[in-house]
Amino acid sequence: MNLKESLLYLEHLMERFYPIGDDGKGGVTRLAYTKSEDKMHEEFTSIGIEEGYHVEVDEVGNTFLSIGEHEEYYLVGSHLDSVISGGRFDGVLGVAVGLLLLKRIKEENLNIPLKVVALRCEESSNFMKATLGSSLITGEYNPDDFINLRSREGKSLGEIFKERGYNRSPEIIQGVKAYLELHIEQGRILEGEGLPIGIVSAIAGNTRFKVNIRGLAEHSGATPMDIRQDALCGASEIILGIEKIGQGDYTSTAVTTVGVIENHPNSLNVIPGEVEFSVDFRDGDNENIERIRLDIYEMIKDVCDRRNLSYEIVFLSSSSAVQLDDKLTLELANIATELNIKHKIMPSGAGHDAMKFAKITNTGMIFVPCKGGISHNSMEEANLQDAVIGTNIMINYLKGGRP
Amino acid sequence: MNLKESLLYLEHLMERFYPIGDDGKGGVTRLAYTKSEDKMHEEFTSIGIEEGYHVEVDEVGNTFLSIGEHEEYYLVGSHLDSVISGGRFDGVLGVAVGLLLLKRIKEENLNIPLKVVALRCEESSNFMKATLGSSLITGEYNPDDFINLRSREGKSLGEIFKERGYNRSPEIIQGVKAYLELHIEQGRILEGEGLPIGIVSAIAGNTRFKVNIRGLAEHSGATPMDIRQDALCGASEIILGIEKIGQGDYTSTAVTTVGVIENHPNSLNVIPGEVEFSVDFRDGDNENIERIRLDIYEMIKDVCDRRNLSYEIVFLSSSSAVQLDDKLTLELANIATELNIKHKIMPSGAGHDAMKFAKITNTGMIFVPCKGGISHNSMEEANLQDAVIGTNIMINYLKGGRP
Repeated sequence: MNLKESLLYLEHLMERFYPIGDDGKGGVTRLAYTKSEDKMHEEFTSIGIEEGYHVEVDEVGNTFLSIGEHEEYYLVGSHLDSVISGGRFDGVLGVAVGLLLLKRIKEENLNIPLKVVALRCEESSNFMKATLGSSLITGEYNPDDFINLRSREGKSLGEIFKERGYNRSPEIIQGVKAYLELHIEQGRILEGEGLPIGIVSAIAGNTRFKVNIRGLAEHSGATPMDIRQDALCGASEIILGIEKIGQGDYTSTAVTTVGVIENHPNSLNVIPGEVEFSVDFRDGDNENIERIRLDIYEMIKDVCDRRNLSYEIVFLSSSSAVQLDDKLTLELANIATELNIKHKIMPSGAGHDAMKFAKITNTGMIFVPCKGGISHNSMEEANLQDAVIGTNIMINYLKGGRP
Repeated sequence: MNLKESLLYLEHLMERFYPIGDDGKGGVTRLAYTKSEDKMHEEFTSIGIEEGYHVEVDEVGNTFLSIGEHEEYYLVGSHLDSVISGGRFDGVLGVAVGLLLLKRIKEENLNIPLKVVALRCEESSNFMKATLGSSLITGEYNPDDFINLRSREGKSLGEIFKERGYNRSPEIIQGVKAYLELHIEQGRILEGEGLPIGIVSAIAGNTRFKVNIRGLAEHSGATPMDIRQDALCGASEIILGIEKIGQGDYTSTAVTTVGVIENHPNSLNVIPGEVEFSVDFRDGDNENIERIRLDIYEMIKDVCDRRNLSYEIVFLSSSSAVQLDDKLTLELANIATELNIKHKIMPSGAGHDAMKFAKITNTGMIFVPCKGGISHNSMEEANLQDAVIGTNIMINYLKGGRP
């Protein structure tokens, strides 16, 4: 397949996934382990059946396609779920690139043992926990740690797994010679430097927790300012404190975010009595992650003490910064150089399924730019030509090294 | 009826309303124009029927009880709706005191033309607009101003009125010689000074608006701190700015509150792209209300400009500070003095139905302390003995002056 045929096929694949989970506002909502994610996997399976691929679904709902069956194989893929009102490239592009690789192997009669995987629940949007599908099959999670997680609708993952006949203690995936994933960068570095390709060297670690602030819900008209215990004012001060810590001089790659906030009783004429919010922070350096955590904890205590508020911090999850396979990263970069593709070796601020596979096999990742660095948003957009270029690097690697 | 009989009867009345709208967490939720408020009015009506009172329901659902019918009459009452997870005394106590007055008139064979009213929708919790029942029958609102208000469940007040057969342009209430209302203070002044009674001289005016802040929803891991347009961080800075303006030195009675906040997409790993929140501020001085409004507007503009956020301010409602009837206030205070009841003349920070009646008739209000000043909260509590003392002042006024 030449470049043009590859591009047309990739466009065709992306368009098949395009309408699923449409939120009516330009974006898509394909929450993990819901019908919209199922539909994505059904479409993926349909493509496999049409092409005559072998289809497998593992014990937790991840879907695999391959040409015939293999004992030992390369694994290429990504996820098909999305955040709420997210974009159409995050995850899906990596799965579509896997399908393009399979198509090329088939059309070009290449003898490469490849499986393409569509992983479940990479986003934390539904269960407040990310990369569930990849974590479960790489032995990362103890089943007891996740089975009580609840979906946004309040259903436990245990119930959902039972209904679907999934296994809460699945076997660890076997025979993976290497895992490769192409993904949009979700940042603005490649675009800023005019590069079509990034070779990922490491994935930032992160820590997530929830903070619950309690004050006193009182009448907004009859309670003087100086005796209030306003939980939302306290939360606001903490949110700005978290922003400031992220802007601090630990490292230039540290990021801190409050993405979720719930206010109670959330009534126009009642001083907020209770506020709960999430904290997500990341860095490429595990020591910095710990420093940021301690600084945030101390700042929360200071604000709450001063404002006469009580608080509770509930740990959600944490992942260490993960170094990808040096040898593989270098090999991908060398292939890019020999193909005359401009690229840079760079860390990833976002978490990816690749960081789970890095613990059990040789793992590499390729980034392509996305417009304005915007992701997790309906405006998310990537140039499919960059993805075809990334596919070229991958197939050369799969062929056994340099082009 | 002696003091003990009055207290027992008042306790009995309060207990009849007690279980309605129980939220299972110690408080009650009796949102305006919902079934739980209806149940409160049904209970009020049942009490009237049992006592042989005349029952009237007006064109907007306010319920009136009286002994026989009167062309000209005194009106005593308050409201039966509540905030979300509110207390059991706010409003209900004033209605119960009206019922105690009627009972005393009946038992003591007094010739006083009295109607007791249970007003609808005093709280803004369901429609973001307060004192609807009293405003509509005192000619305060143009029907077009409120008919499109939506309940928390998204139903328009127009639809609700149509379903219930209410009239969006009701006649103005006639024949009211004076309106009297007893209410819990919802502040801590009376408790702090050890007084059982406050005579209200004026009610603070307020202004309410919504603010919508827009930034950019982006990936929390891959978007560096220095290029973010985080709508929640912007909102947090504004919320603290509003608090500071309320704490400023305009007057010691100014209060500013952000009670409602909604964050979008409200996802753990997405930088907030849009935040909407309410602003409620009050003062006894109309010029100060305007100064506070201008200061808040300017501060919002500064924060949004600096943070590269866009914003929109949507006006909700405003009411002027209302002076109650000087002569009536003084008369109530004189009666209290002659009955040897410790009291003070004071302004009200909270809005009340009385401020609507003040525009069409002689209007007076009596406050009783509530524990810790706590209101709009399940912990709200008042001493019914204070309410009996207030009822004594009222009945002496109704008898035609001094005891």
